Amino acid sequence: MMEPCGLVTLTTDFGVKEPYAGVVKGVIFSANPNARIVDITHDIPAHNIVNAAFTLSRSYDYFPQGTVHVAVVDPEVGGKRLNIAVKTDRHFFVGPDNGIFSLVLAREKNVEIREIKNPVFKLERVSSTFHGRDVYAPCAGRLSAGENFSDVGPVVTQLSKLVYPKVQQEGNILTGEIVLVDSFGNLITNISRQSLQSFTGKKKFGIYFGGERFFEIKDHYSEVPKGMPLVLFGSSGYLEISMNEGNAASYFMTSTGSTVTVRRL
Amino acid sequence: MMEPCGLVTLTTDFGVKEPYAGVVKGVIFSANPNARIVDITHDIPAHNIVNAAFTLSRSYDYFPQGTVHVAVVDPEVGGKRLNIAVKTDRHFFVGPDNGIFSLVLAREKNVEIREIKNPVFKLERVSSTFHGRDVYAPCAGRLSAGENFSDVGPVVTQLSKLVYPKVQQEGNILTGEIVLVDSFGNLITNISRQSLQSFTGKKKFGIYFGGERFFEIKDHYSEVPKGMPLVLFGSSGYLEISMNEGNAASYFMTSTGSTVTVRRL
Amino acid sequence: MMEPCGLVTLTTDFGVKEPYAGVVKGVIFSANPNARIVDITHDIPAHNIVNAAFTLSRSYDYFPQGTVHVAVVDPEVGGKRLNIAVKTDRHFFVGPDNGIFSLVLAREKNVEIREIKNPVFKLERVSSTFHGRDVYAPCAGRLSAGENFSDVGPVVTQLSKLVYPKVQQEGNILTGEIVLVDSFGNLITNISRQSLQSFTGKKKFGIYFGGERFFEIKDHYSEVPKGMPLVLFGSSGYLEISMNEGNAASYFMTSTGSTVTVRRL
Repeated sequence: MMEPCGLVTLTTDFGVKEPYAGVVKGVIFSANPNARIVDITHDIPAHNIVNAAFTLSRSYDYFPQGTVHVAVVDPEVGGKRLNIAVKTDRHFFVGPDNGIFSLVLAREKNVEIREIKNPVFKLERVSSTFHGRDVYAPCAGRLSAGENFSDVGPVVTQLSKLVYPKVQQEGNILTGEIVLVDSFGNLITNISRQSLQSFTGKKKFGIYFGGERFFEIKDHYSEVPKGMPLVLFGSSGYLEISMNEGNAASYFMTSTGSTVTVRRL
Repeated sequence: MMEPCGLVTLTTDFGVKEPYAGVVKGVIFSANPNARIVDITHDIPAHNIVNAAFTLSRSYDYFPQGTVHVAVVDPEVGGKRLNIAVKTDRHFFVGPDNGIFSLVLAREKNVEIREIKNPVFKLERVSSTFHGRDVYAPCAGRLSAGENFSDVGPVVTQLSKLVYPKVQQEGNILTGEIVLVDSFGNLITNISRQSLQSFTGKKKFGIYFGGERFFEIKDHYSEVPKGMPLVLFGSSGYLEISMNEGNAASYFMTSTGSTVTVRRL
Repeated sequence: MMEPCGLVTLTTDFGVKEPYAGVVKGVIFSANPNARIVDITHDIPAHNIVNAAFTLSRSYDYFPQGTVHVAVVDPEVGGKRLNIAVKTDRHFFVGPDNGIFSLVLAREKNVEIREIKNPVFKLERVSSTFHGRDVYAPCAGRLSAGENFSDVGPVVTQLSKLVYPKVQQEGNILTGEIVLVDSFGNLITNISRQSLQSFTGKKKFGIYFGGERFFEIKDHYSEVPKGMPLVLFGSSGYLEISMNEGNAASYFMTSTGSTVTVRRL
């Protein structure tokens, strides 16, 4: 049986200039003085639920079993969307019901979802603008301290779905797009190793992006000369367009949303 | 009686590019290996004591009783201002005597102030430029570990005061200003719920800002259409000018210091 | 004998926008649930090994004995450079063998270096692009938990050296340069207190930078009027060019690499 391990992670669009993330941690520690808290990031682009879902999905399973993952990108805060807590056979998740957990829950088993209704799992006074502090932080703190998941509130059977870009296939062409630019300027696509392999099989193929053609997927940056672009499967398992000791985003003068084409030859 | 809980918070203008905040944590852990440390923010605008005072005041009481709050915005470091530690019936505060604690101490009871004089509460070698590391970190570490507050140094009876913008009232007009812009572009004013209510009583009123007029204070962002501005009391209890799924600072092309007018109708 | 204290520090060029640093922490906590983790910085300029080496060197010995310091600025990741762990009589260091530890190891005694070869000290699947997560994090986690250093892998006798700017002396002229600009705009040179004193002895001297001349090294910012430049030995023990309540980098419109000249008079 999965038991909480005392760890809580935070994935938000709060930034770190303002004291929001710090305050959330204060509330978590108030609920569980023995918590350990890790920032996954507070720099999700404001209101970008897809980015948050993708970021959490690339990160969460490097944490120990029993971690509580809080994700707050919540443009509808104070509106009608539910506040939810989720338990699977490996992790907990706490945040708004707006699709932010769609990608992770597709990979988890024995998913149990509850609405955060029990006032014990909230602050006494719940504002209309900051549920991260007033609902998710106390709920995450209490779950990380071992309180009963079933006490959170009533079971929810249907979650909101995330609309996010999927790979398109038409004849000999597979079309993906850049979904993230990391801080090194690496361009991360939505083309997984699996989807590429099932598309190309053992056939030869070319990858076309920004006027460049790539006929090989490399294993290491250092397989191409300094300052040259390459494609490889990054640590997330998705196809990346990168440069050896350089910044691919600058080189291609591009950002998220750009099209990447794979053609069977 | 208030006991330290082992938590230490940091509010500074160090930024996170340089290793200053990390080094401060190293010194805190050297003094108290069991400390838990939370960043409130390291991105206070350089030398902006008012911003730091306001930020700390909005944040500190979400932390458990017995937390030690370190605040370092210290343009006069190495000059004549005192290094102080403060104990109240709920929290500790450690930093320079330059008004940075004025707002929090106005809300605290049983305030006891001491100058940090005892060499045990400092590093062996105290530099003239980095008291955060050399004085406040070791002092905070030791207080968080339970050392006697009275050992810190002699009692101080008078603190430096903070000069910060106050709401002005003249006839039927109340004038406030934007004191903080948060990372979502919300414009936070110095008009508290209390000061607005005692000004308007049960009268109708209008709020005027940047060419817009607001006749109602909303509860939720979602009460106005996407991309429309609104006013509400934010989670800090101060009047905020915001946008539903938008950035009010960009919309109004404004920043701190801009005037907000409330008129009794 | 030096024992691990449970602390792990991180010095990287990952930034904090992407979840890399968070994921590294997840892996550390998976290896050692009782670790405490401190960010020194994740904002080393991308691929700048000299900056990382200097940053770590200014920071590491403010941490308690037995701290494990992870440094990851690793442009050759996936290439031929070794993954190493180092034990001295005070600290542990974990990262790539690319000179990043040159400055700290010059100050440490009883240096023992091992290549990280034992699969127990790595993740099961090691990617070609993210050894911070796949090698250094599990190794640091296990060392911080007290596993035998000698189990890490075979002894390495020769480390890669760092090429970094040294102070040049020619006749009556000592030439240094700006090696770091901190977040306050202070310009930190590579001229140590020791190298200046052994150069000038008891002679008078002038320091020349950006059209300004300085004939005195100050102790405090406040010894000059607001907005005036000065030189002093910063908290790192290196000569700094600063301004009282101002930004020297803006004033001199300069950055790293600029020449600082000391002339014996």
